[in-house]
Amino acid sequence: MEAYQLLLTLRAVRHFTDQPVPEESLARILQAARWTGSAKNTQPWQFVVVRQRETLRLLAGFGSYASHLAGAPLGIVVATPPGYALFDAGRVTQNMMLAAWADGVGSCIASFHDEALARALLGIPEGFLAHTAISFGYPQPDAPETIEGKPRVEVLASLGRRALDELVHWEHW
Amino acid sequence: MEAYQLLLTLRAVRHFTDQPVPEESLARILQAARWTGSAKNTQPWQFVVVRQRETLRLLAGFGSYASHLAGAPLGIVVATPPGYALFDAGRVTQNMMLAAWADGVGSCIASFHDEALARALLGIPEGFLAHTAISFGYPQPDAPETIEGKPRVEVLASLGRRALDELVHWEHW
Repeated sequence: MEAYQLLLTLRAVRHFTDQPVPEESLARILQAARWTGSAKNTQPWQFVVVRQRETLRLLAGFGSYASHLAGAPLGIVVATPPGYALFDAGRVTQNMMLAAWADGVGSCIASFHDEALARALLGIPEGFLAHTAISFGYPQPDAPETIEGKPRVEVLASLGRRALDELVHWEHW
Repeated sequence: MEAYQLLLTLRAVRHFTDQPVPEESLARILQAARWTGSAKNTQPWQFVVVRQRETLRLLAGFGSYASHLAGAPLGIVVATPPGYALFDAGRVTQNMMLAAWADGVGSCIASFHDEALARALLGIPEGFLAHTAISFGYPQPDAPETIEGKPRVEVLASLGRRALDELVHWEHW
């Protein structure tokens, strides 16, 4: 896929086939994470790669909209220290999702409202917050248009994207 | 450029030529921002596009490592509400930098330690934090290897990137 189209076409994929994510794709996802830039090159992230079904099922219970993890062949938990590293966590998550999508692998972010449970389950030490996990897998054809069984319009703040003139200011707000 | 290579080769570019960023590239950068995913599709971001030299010079004074803005032909200030939107700010920033790099346009992030000054200068209203700006421009050939006049090793927490086995855990930390 052309690089710019990759950026425009990435969407959340919440339903996956049973097909495993190939080892080569996982390797590319992790290399894309590794090479992501961060504030002063602190590389403030740690990753737990999860493919055991029981662990994915437990993780799916730690966020209000995390159920997609239960059906994903692969999850990656992103842990960063508290504070500004949350910005870098967003950068590295985006890079991993894009690397996956370049291989046709879909993904969805789960935010853990109960990140302490995720830390306990995975043995993540003090000093890190396990705030985010990403599901990865091949998109299920004819997947339901719903989120957690509800119509998308009830869950999302908006559908589609705002027009640029609602987002962009020129020289001054 | 092949999409995966785009992800691996993005680096901070702090020194730019005088050549303006073409309007077509700016349009692609802004579309990449617009189409970025966010928590519940809240699209929590607003952008101020700055090309006036005096404004860029002033912004360059609002962060300890923001001087690259003073010499950039283009800056984009990213404003998001306080809290978890900082994660989405990281995602949208990464997407803009990648869209630029796909056109050969380099970029560098500035964090404003004094974001209230940036808000005041640009007229950004209450409810948003103007925590981040991105410089964009064509990389200057033979640019100095220094950051703010200091050797990179004195400013950065590390050089290069950590090995994967320092970042990745399998099933459990």
